[in-house]
Amino acid sequence: MERPQPRPVFFVSDGTGITAETLGNSVLTQFEGTFSKTRRPFIDTVEKAKTVVAEIRFQAQRTVEPVVFLTIMSRDIRSVFNDCPGIVLDLVEASLGTLEDRLGQQASRSLGKAHGIADSDIYRNRMAAVEFALEHDDGQSIKALGLADVILVGPSRVGKTPTGMYLAINYGIRAANYPLLDEDLASQQLPESLRPLSDKLFGLISSPRYLHQIRQERRPNSPYSSLEQCTFELGAATKLFESERIAFIDTTTKSIEEISTIILTTLGLNNSPEYIGASP
Amino acid sequence: MERPQPRPVFFVSDGTGITAETLGNSVLTQFEGTFSKTRRPFIDTVEKAKTVVAEIRFQAQRTVEPVVFLTIMSRDIRSVFNDCPGIVLDLVEASLGTLEDRLGQQASRSLGKAHGIADSDIYRNRMAAVEFALEHDDGQSIKALGLADVILVGPSRVGKTPTGMYLAINYGIRAANYPLLDEDLASQQLPESLRPLSDKLFGLISSPRYLHQIRQERRPNSPYSSLEQCTFELGAATKLFESERIAFIDTTTKSIEEISTIILTTLGLNNSPEYIGASP
Repeated sequence: MERPQPRPVFFVSDGTGITAETLGNSVLTQFEGTFSKTRRPFIDTVEKAKTVVAEIRFQAQRTVEPVVFLTIMSRDIRSVFNDCPGIVLDLVEASLGTLEDRLGQQASRSLGKAHGIADSDIYRNRMAAVEFALEHDDGQSIKALGLADVILVGPSRVGKTPTGMYLAINYGIRAANYPLLDEDLASQQLPESLRPLSDKLFGLISSPRYLHQIRQERRPNSPYSSLEQCTFELGAATKLFESERIAFIDTTTKSIEEISTIILTTLGLNNSPEYIGASP
Repeated sequence: MERPQPRPVFFVSDGTGITAETLGNSVLTQFEGTFSKTRRPFIDTVEKAKTVVAEIRFQAQRTVEPVVFLTIMSRDIRSVFNDCPGIVLDLVEASLGTLEDRLGQQASRSLGKAHGIADSDIYRNRMAAVEFALEHDDGQSIKALGLADVILVGPSRVGKTPTGMYLAINYGIRAANYPLLDEDLASQQLPESLRPLSDKLFGLISSPRYLHQIRQERRPNSPYSSLEQCTFELGAATKLFESERIAFIDTTTKSIEEISTIILTTLGLNNSPEYIGASP
């Protein structure tokens, strides 16, 4: 019996295609089958659009009907895809059309506008946030901890560093992170430099078994990695977070995006003017 | 004369709402007016949906008609928004419906599926990529440079670090970065440790005036920041990239997302199995 061919999927955008791909992928997870995916970003002229349509037509003739996700603002470029074979799913046109009707305005249909994030103040702010996160990773520096938007705390290897980097690079949030060491956990006291900053703290924990697995990969069969040590640290951290009334979450089954969203929402950073969306 | 009230905008999702917000924001940039934005993530029960609809109704009564962007997979939860006041823009339903018809399958409409990235192998891969990027930032370590997926090169302050962090955290790409120093630029030779790795190199430059501005903020009126020095470094870096046939881009007017997309596409990392989409 032959294996079914994977279905070609194209993510086509006049911008980066990141949104088309993210939204398209989450729609595809709702269906059975295997997919062979291609991103075609920066399709910002009619000529480029014709080339992509030719590529999709070529695939359509060789294999099963492709799925095409589009995020294209310009009507001229969009119209090239009227001739596109396959299942063409436009992710913006319906919203644009509805808003034009309901707001009584014509959409500007201009490309550049979706790229407001190249604005240099916002860009510099993100650069500064990444620098801040690098300087304040793992308790390395406490010199500007008071300038942090959030300080992630928890035992080693619960996800503080990647979460902090995600918040810095994607949201321009100044995220520091600070480890809780055995002495902090045994004494049930926050490290001294964190005590005046308790409103900025956010705790991360995971399940003991998961932390044990992660640490085993780093230092196999060490006291640090033992299930007993992981259980102690996580239990003591939880107790400390509760007694100090520090918000915390279990990261075990969560993606970095989910963890970050919970932190932003909990600390009310979500609507901060520092927030920066990604370009489509 | 009174200033017009900002229009309330809600991004409502059964996941993080990141996609709803990103796509919604790029649609809104096409229209005039000011908007007051709220993200409501993890709306994964009918009860939570009713609470959000009540909040939107409250806003609708106090001010102008709200705009509501939805990314919700479940039909039951989605249907709560049939009673929602405002301009409700569903970003997934049309795609799901069309795919159901054309593929002859029912969408699973299950929430969990969109969160495949919480899968621990992929999560660990991202953690490892962030660690790699931290260890290989700014030429700090060359010990595992051969394991890099990409090595960003260029003068100081052209955006190597934030771009590398973005690639690591969002795509699980092992991105190192390495500065080009005056001696490399004057001799028109790559640093020795990079020579065997030229297929992994990607160059970043910016305009002299922009680099000058950025460096001025860091070390005002220093030789390092002078327009003359910036012009020399960028000119020499461009010449070196051209003679070594290293792909490079000017980052001056580009967002980190755009820079990263160009790098992924140019180096063919786009369809790598390491690629990870964000959750909606």
